[in-house]
Amino acid sequence: MSKLTQVNWKEVSLGEGFWGQWQHTNARATVNAIYDRFHETGRIDAMRLSWQEGMDNKPHIFWDSDVAKWMEGAAYILYYHPDEEISKKLETVIDYIEQGQDEDGYFNSYFLTCEPVNRFNDRTAHELYTAGHMMEAAVAHFYSTGSKRFLNIMTRFADFIEKAFKLEGTANYSAPGHQEIELALVRLWQATGEDRYLELSKHFIDIRGTQAHDRIFSVRNGTWPASPPLNSQLLYNDTYAQDDAPARELPAAAGHAVRAMYFYSSMADISREYGDKELYEACLRLWDDATLRKMYVTGGVSAERFGEAIGAAYMLPNQSSYAETCASIAMAFFAQRMFSIEPDARYADIIERQMYNGALAGLSLDGTGFFYDNALQSVPAHNDFLKGVHDTRNLFPNYRRERVFECSCCPPNILRFIAAIGEYVYATQEDTLYISQYVQSKANIKLASGSMQVEQTTNYPWTETVQVQVGGESVEGAALAFRMPGWCTNPTVSIDGTVVYSSNAIADGLVLKNGYLHIPVSLMTDGAVSLSFPMPVVEMEANPLVMESAGKVALMRGPVVYCLEAVDNPFNIFDMTILSQPEYSHSTHDINGVPMVMLHGNAAVRIRDDWNQTLYRPSGSRYTHVSFTAVPYFAWANREPGEMAVWLQKESNLSG
Amino acid sequence: MSKLTQVNWKEVSLGEGFWGQWQHTNARATVNAIYDRFHETGRIDAMRLSWQEGMDNKPHIFWDSDVAKWMEGAAYILYYHPDEEISKKLETVIDYIEQGQDEDGYFNSYFLTCEPVNRFNDRTAHELYTAGHMMEAAVAHFYSTGSKRFLNIMTRFADFIEKAFKLEGTANYSAPGHQEIELALVRLWQATGEDRYLELSKHFIDIRGTQAHDRIFSVRNGTWPASPPLNSQLLYNDTYAQDDAPARELPAAAGHAVRAMYFYSSMADISREYGDKELYEACLRLWDDATLRKMYVTGGVSAERFGEAIGAAYMLPNQSSYAETCASIAMAFFAQRMFSIEPDARYADIIERQMYNGALAGLSLDGTGFFYDNALQSVPAHNDFLKGVHDTRNLFPNYRRERVFECSCCPPNILRFIAAIGEYVYATQEDTLYISQYVQSKANIKLASGSMQVEQTTNYPWTETVQVQVGGESVEGAALAFRMPGWCTNPTVSIDGTVVYSSNAIADGLVLKNGYLHIPVSLMTDGAVSLSFPMPVVEMEANPLVMESAGKVALMRGPVVYCLEAVDNPFNIFDMTILSQPEYSHSTHDINGVPMVMLHGNAAVRIRDDWNQTLYRPSGSRYTHVSFTAVPYFAWANREPGEMAVWLQKESNLSG
Repeated sequence: MSKLTQVNWKEVSLGEGFWGQWQHTNARATVNAIYDRFHETGRIDAMRLSWQEGMDNKPHIFWDSDVAKWMEGAAYILYYHPDEEISKKLETVIDYIEQGQDEDGYFNSYFLTCEPVNRFNDRTAHELYTAGHMMEAAVAHFYSTGSKRFLNIMTRFADFIEKAFKLEGTANYSAPGHQEIELALVRLWQATGEDRYLELSKHFIDIRGTQAHDRIFSVRNGTWPASPPLNSQLLYNDTYAQDDAPARELPAAAGHAVRAMYFYSSMADISREYGDKELYEACLRLWDDATLRKMYVTGGVSAERFGEAIGAAYMLPNQSSYAETCASIAMAFFAQRMFSIEPDARYADIIERQMYNGALAGLSLDGTGFFYDNALQSVPAHNDFLKGVHDTRNLFPNYRRERVFECSCCPPNILRFIAAIGEYVYATQEDTLYISQYVQSKANIKLASGSMQVEQTTNYPWTETVQVQVGGESVEGAALAFRMPGWCTNPTVSIDGTVVYSSNAIADGLVLKNGYLHIPVSLMTDGAVSLSFPMPVVEMEANPLVMESAGKVALMRGPVVYCLEAVDNPFNIFDMTILSQPEYSHSTHDINGVPMVMLHGNAAVRIRDDWNQTLYRPSGSRYTHVSFTAVPYFAWANREPGEMAVWLQKESNLSG
Repeated sequence: MSKLTQVNWKEVSLGEGFWGQWQHTNARATVNAIYDRFHETGRIDAMRLSWQEGMDNKPHIFWDSDVAKWMEGAAYILYYHPDEEISKKLETVIDYIEQGQDEDGYFNSYFLTCEPVNRFNDRTAHELYTAGHMMEAAVAHFYSTGSKRFLNIMTRFADFIEKAFKLEGTANYSAPGHQEIELALVRLWQATGEDRYLELSKHFIDIRGTQAHDRIFSVRNGTWPASPPLNSQLLYNDTYAQDDAPARELPAAAGHAVRAMYFYSSMADISREYGDKELYEACLRLWDDATLRKMYVTGGVSAERFGEAIGAAYMLPNQSSYAETCASIAMAFFAQRMFSIEPDARYADIIERQMYNGALAGLSLDGTGFFYDNALQSVPAHNDFLKGVHDTRNLFPNYRRERVFECSCCPPNILRFIAAIGEYVYATQEDTLYISQYVQSKANIKLASGSMQVEQTTNYPWTETVQVQVGGESVEGAALAFRMPGWCTNPTVSIDGTVVYSSNAIADGLVLKNGYLHIPVSLMTDGAVSLSFPMPVVEMEANPLVMESAGKVALMRGPVVYCLEAVDNPFNIFDMTILSQPEYSHSTHDINGVPMVMLHGNAAVRIRDDWNQTLYRPSGSRYTHVSFTAVPYFAWANREPGEMAVWLQKESNLSG
């Protein structure tokens, strides 16, 4: 059977639904906000290679990757939202790169400006990481504009990298400290058809963890970084950069979460393209370990602040979570690639979890504020207290969104993720169209034996129904495969008013496989299908081994995880306990002009009046009942700062 | 009315009860274990001032304080447990100090050996801190042996300090970075009768926080410490060393907990001796803030690991607690001094809390292992995981006791605390004898108008009854004042079989004041009194503002706080929930040969079989009932390592 093909983001145009709105914000606010911050901080000008000792804003080894991710996002955006200004800015940066690129093809604004002699000398110096992001940007620019200008610049760089790392081995190390080049080369191969790039990607995967001289703690004989970060000793830990074993033998999802997820993504790419079973089994092992033991309910996957690392199994602290926005996005990349090896709803479920929770939480509702690390529980008073005695970045995530970070990987990452969200919606395999995400959109689909148009009408994730309409030439044997979301216990699918699938019945000719309901188009009256995914408020509990969440529940409605914020709840949310049989309701409200569904329920809190002069006393407090309001987790920290909690105490029912 | 006087530890000889056993362990094991470690690490030899560049074990600025606290403890121990060997070791160290003391009286083994030119140059360099501990050791040696040899050495040093810091101001700073000299000078005054020492103590308290040039971050122009500790930036925070305001204006209990408690102790001393109301009000304010908002149920008072600092109000994390052993001991010092200004059971209650919990937890049952910081909750797997990626000392307390620490203040502190435990039992005011702690013991008491012997017969804290017998010359108007423990809701006091005090009745001639029941000796048949303090298992809850303990209870029986250890409970203790109406029982068992009362109760845990491939799912798990065993908190980590918890989930009763 032929391989599954993702439908390119270009073929999917979003309407006025949830994601269409986010793409408007992205195109109207985020793309400019990030450019302006990058311009202010010198990142844009650095690309001109005009910085000299004594000037402000000394370039940093990873700045090119920030700019490149902005370029990639801008390229996607320009396709559907033409904008003279942004286009000019984008082309100008490409001019800088074109003019600054070394004869041999090398480009990195830091090294060309500050340390030309140290090119490819230190594997922790992010050169292949920045190169990879520039390649992804070039591919996006090519798809978006049709111009090969940027693409050709980057193929020249890729050719030089092949020479330095594979053909001639002139580089001082074998595998990069921070992965990214691996998956970027696959994209470059897809865009150019040049097999050498796919082979070079495989080379980087094969050689990693096999070279004794490749040790990430070859940190320039200790001269870099100038002021070692709190977690610098992590650089002495092979697991940190997935150096502890060759890719095929990696025992567990571990180390720096973004490096890990980018690496696992490229491992999936290569196992798919080369039919490498051993590599695929490693991917499955790492996938299961990450998603069944080391992931927050929001999708966050870096539980360990020190080293921005994946936590130990079931070690998922809430107040000191890290849950880096980039790691959630990177996990969606990994999921997408696993899906394209074997379509399974469990991968699309995780992409959805990141889309509506872990990744989206990194962006403010107005599109100009960002979280790098994401709290699952926040107590501003604790952050503020610690600010007096310690750099709180090392202890708790921020409770206020920032406009730019010193290490600003996350803002342009969420920019490009939202701008290309369309590529997560559809995939084809021969004459079957997989519908993985429910998004108000129209798309042109090429099947093996012809093409079709598909249109989704829905206000998902706020409403339960999705109308799907296919049209175009009728393709003999064409079928649609609809994801039945993992969170939904009782979906119903109807054709022309007749239920053809429900939790207790499936009509002839329909097949449910790996969480996808396959329906031949021939069975659809006028090509129309109605889906209904009931969305009651669900109290989720965590595996008993997750000690931080014992006795607590997290609220979900559909794919959206909710949280409590102090601003909506005038009582101690950490002392609050949800009643055993709460009456839940929901209503639609705006926050900063963005409409969303909020949840309401009943709970109890201890009466505090008689506690003023007591710290500990025999139990037996009296409770008072309260109604609480929960907001989507992605929408927190958009109003006045206050306490926040995802995991809420739940009245115990020990006979249960 | 004349001032209250503590009865010196010398007058109180412990029998075979709880503390008598601990003093045996102290005299048999601890005093030798600490000496041996200090000898191995070079601390003892350092006192000979023979160290030279190139040798191992370079002296450290605070080593003298470690040795001095051992000397103090050894001095107490020798009084009741004569031992040639220990006596010889003690006298030998005194010889070293005598021989090494500078003509002007100065002594610090680090500065005399390594940096003679930097004497009294840097207030963060602990010279007055080490001096203070040597003075306390000298006073103990004088009381214990009657010899003034060591005392005279230290008065010479005190005289030089007076000259350098008060009379001539030749020192480079005004107030020490780490307090201790202040309370030591008061002890020196008590032992010598030399008022200048009391006045010098007052001088250090008055000047602190008033001198602009006194800023703790005058860290030798940044040359020390060579490798800044994680929390070095704390040195830039005035609050860290109680420099943020003059003593009388200190707004809250804050900063490095040991510095704070030592300082508050000396503030209480001075307010008492000078009748300084403003200083006393500051003490009351700091006392209330520390004990009503910033103290663990065990008595631990440093909640903030970074800076070994007192936490924010109600910020009491369990797994990342610090709760330094020294801070608990220091809080007992503070309580003792507050008590001697105005006798109140609330002070003796805190001393008791530290005696049986916060302080005692720092010592292993065999007397040779120690905790510096004390966990309220421990997950060895988390410590071990983080060891791979980070120095866990900065994140969680150890789960194994150690034999010595680089900064080894706690081991000799618990040594001297236990060795002098007798001084917390009795105090006199005119002809009233205050009995604050219930300890199997005999004591000789001098009252204003005569003397008496008092004997306590009890197996407290394991049993509920205490027999008190007074004898000796009959003193007209003599009275005993018995503490009614704050944890006890229904004490009964009987004379000759007749109840003279209970929760609902008090006999004529008896008075209850500030938690003390005053009974004229004339009303005691043959001078005998029987006390009964019922000790049911009590579930304590924390103030609702302590978010970490919401929905949880801590078990206490009498003054002893309990915890669960994995070794006794073959299930997930963090998922365990105590039933709403548990049947509690208790039984006596040994751990490493030490008998103690253990508690047993009923709870439920979630059934795990069906969770293997699930991380999150809709709530509704089934539970299975279990019986649990709790051990005294002080006794944890004496068997195979495992998970531990003080705060336990409790079945909610929201109507309650």
